[in-house]
Amino acid sequence: MREVFQQELQEVQERLVEIASLVAISIENATRAFNESNVSLAERVIADDDKIDELAISLDELAINILARQQPVARDLRIVVSALRISASLERMGDMSEHIAQLARYRFPEKVVPKTLRPTFAEMGQLDVAMARKLAELLRTEDVRLAEEIRNDDDKVDALHLSVFDTVLGEKWKGGAEDTVDATLASRYHERFADHAVSIAKKVQYLATGDWIPVD
Amino acid sequence: MREVFQQELQEVQERLVEIASLVAISIENATRAFNESNVSLAERVIADDDKIDELAISLDELAINILARQQPVARDLRIVVSALRISASLERMGDMSEHIAQLARYRFPEKVVPKTLRPTFAEMGQLDVAMARKLAELLRTEDVRLAEEIRNDDDKVDALHLSVFDTVLGEKWKGGAEDTVDATLASRYHERFADHAVSIAKKVQYLATGDWIPVD
Repeated sequence: MREVFQQELQEVQERLVEIASLVAISIENATRAFNESNVSLAERVIADDDKIDELAISLDELAINILARQQPVARDLRIVVSALRISASLERMGDMSEHIAQLARYRFPEKVVPKTLRPTFAEMGQLDVAMARKLAELLRTEDVRLAEEIRNDDDKVDALHLSVFDTVLGEKWKGGAEDTVDATLASRYHERFADHAVSIAKKVQYLATGDWIPVD
Repeated sequence: MREVFQQELQEVQERLVEIASLVAISIENATRAFNESNVSLAERVIADDDKIDELAISLDELAINILARQQPVARDLRIVVSALRISASLERMGDMSEHIAQLARYRFPEKVVPKTLRPTFAEMGQLDVAMARKLAELLRTEDVRLAEEIRNDDDKVDALHLSVFDTVLGEKWKGGAEDTVDATLASRYHERFADHAVSIAKKVQYLATGDWIPVD
């Protein structure tokens, strides 16, 4: 019974790694679609999000199944409950990529964002991609140094998020209301993406160090 | 054992109703603080959100405890897992109220949003309050007609959300970038608040009708 349970936990872990890897690809494509006003790439991101949603739902079903059949307690129970929460956060990360891609699609053939902000969004996107990749690696290896790196990356994303507001609220800002709306939303989506990554990293870190699993 | 389990489920239900009621108060206060630039009310919303977070964490601990001790299966298991998900959504609804209140606080003593948009935000706020109250009632009574009403309210919130974009992107918009940013974010927070309410209502509806509990 214990051995079956361990195998099932490994299956859960592998599926989480798979979803995190797909999320890394989705935010990479979304950032590019947004910055290059590439509508076909935007549409691919939007279509790919259905796949992420399906995988998350199927993982949740597996986790609930494990709860029902294996009846885990104590730390084992918390691992399975954490997997449910991690899956929900990964699914939301995919939604953030989709939202960024939707901004690119709505404005097409216009450019989504003025040139001045493109380097900022490119950098936010790179950080988000790096965080999602580290998350996949953290989920695979439970190497908690990655959780630390993810937190540091998030600080950088937060700083870039604030700098977007400084730009659009600054005297030099030449963008129209449309640019301001798009920049505000895209920045918010990148920041939320990073927040979810930190929230997942925290859960994995607690699981790996074996103390206590935070519920939030 | 079964009787104890039923009592515990009732405890979970009562706590969900309590949190939903607090969330209704928080969005009501946040909407008023935002529309009237009332900074002390904004600060109360921000402080009250800690209470909502604590209640959600404590409810999650209770649910995990029930899983460990009662080892529910089938529909009972899905009820407890759904409670965990509902608690997470209620906690996020509280965060949306807090974010709206933060917008009011940051801009103080300036007005947050131009007069032209205030009726729209007042209406979004009223709908969000009504939805949160219906949610508390739905959680208490499992009267699924409320779920239907909540979905209808959400359609109205979505329409108002789109109308905010029409306003700030329209030719008559006189607001500066700051107004555009605030309106964009506040509208997004109201819309997300409503989305979470619908997501919870769906789960309760499925639980009440006894078929199948959606995992998303």
